[in-house]
Amino acid sequence: MSALQDRYPDDFAHCYGCGRLNAHGLHVKSEWEGGVCVARFRPAAYHIALPGFVYGGLIASLADCHAMATAAGARMAADGLTPGRDQTPRFVTAGLHVDFLRPTPLGPELRLEARPTDIGEKKVVVEMSVYAGETECVRARVIAVRAPATMRPAEKA
Amino acid sequence: MSALQDRYPDDFAHCYGCGRLNAHGLHVKSEWEGGVCVARFRPAAYHIALPGFVYGGLIASLADCHAMATAAGARMAADGLTPGRDQTPRFVTAGLHVDFLRPTPLGPELRLEARPTDIGEKKVVVEMSVYAGETECVRARVIAVRAPATMRPAEKA
Repeated sequence: MSALQDRYPDDFAHCYGCGRLNAHGLHVKSEWEGGVCVARFRPAAYHIALPGFVYGGLIASLADCHAMATAAGARMAADGLTPGRDQTPRFVTAGLHVDFLRPTPLGPELRLEARPTDIGEKKVVVEMSVYAGETECVRARVIAVRAPATMRPAEKA
Repeated sequence: MSALQDRYPDDFAHCYGCGRLNAHGLHVKSEWEGGVCVARFRPAAYHIALPGFVYGGLIASLADCHAMATAAGARMAADGLTPGRDQTPRFVTAGLHVDFLRPTPLGPELRLEARPTDIGEKKVVVEMSVYAGETECVRARVIAVRAPATMRPAEKA
């Protein structure tokens, strides 16, 4: 199964965090596993805050893109749309609230587990935990909103 | 005058966001201008969410590092310490809350203006605005805490 981000329309696929068309980016990939949307990411050696610990800004970036994908997927499901056939809606971040419970060790693969907790027509709230191995290191609450028309120059309505 | 980050001890200078010793990083630089701590940053062409708009994860990263520097500077001032002579204390991020007021256009230099709003012994709260040109696009509230001993392998007490 392909990731949610792989089904974004081309003009929504340039994101530094998750765009398949951004050669410099992080390429976050999110997939549903049951009712949980999951992304896995292995930080590079230079993605550190202090030696041995993952940079918080990277984790915030992963949370951001993973939440937008979760919101898009949740909205599609609520609308009865079919991934791959129907267009994936575009969400952008209105609020990104990240709480670092403990330092995130560099080394283990990171696993982001997200759940949509409020699925509105134009706004979806996503809550997630970030695990390094089995240890929950970070929680985030992200508010996703439908991209305003001013941000969608090439979208076909 | 050098930036706050240029005075971090070497083992605190590897941060992806602001470490002078991180060859791959963003190199955020923060300086006081009166009572406001200011950082300026020009995103790369690939630091986008959608074409024409700055990636929110980048802005969260800038806010993160800028807030840690602001916290360190505020704590030093409160303790009567002298930058360059006394060691700069290490803060890490406990909470990073970013509210995107409007899309941030790619092009203008970004300016982060931060103020410490609660300066505790071990915890400093920093509030900031991010401007693209003259337009305030983002607000952030960041909770900085003194780095725990487990994160400070090389610190000389």
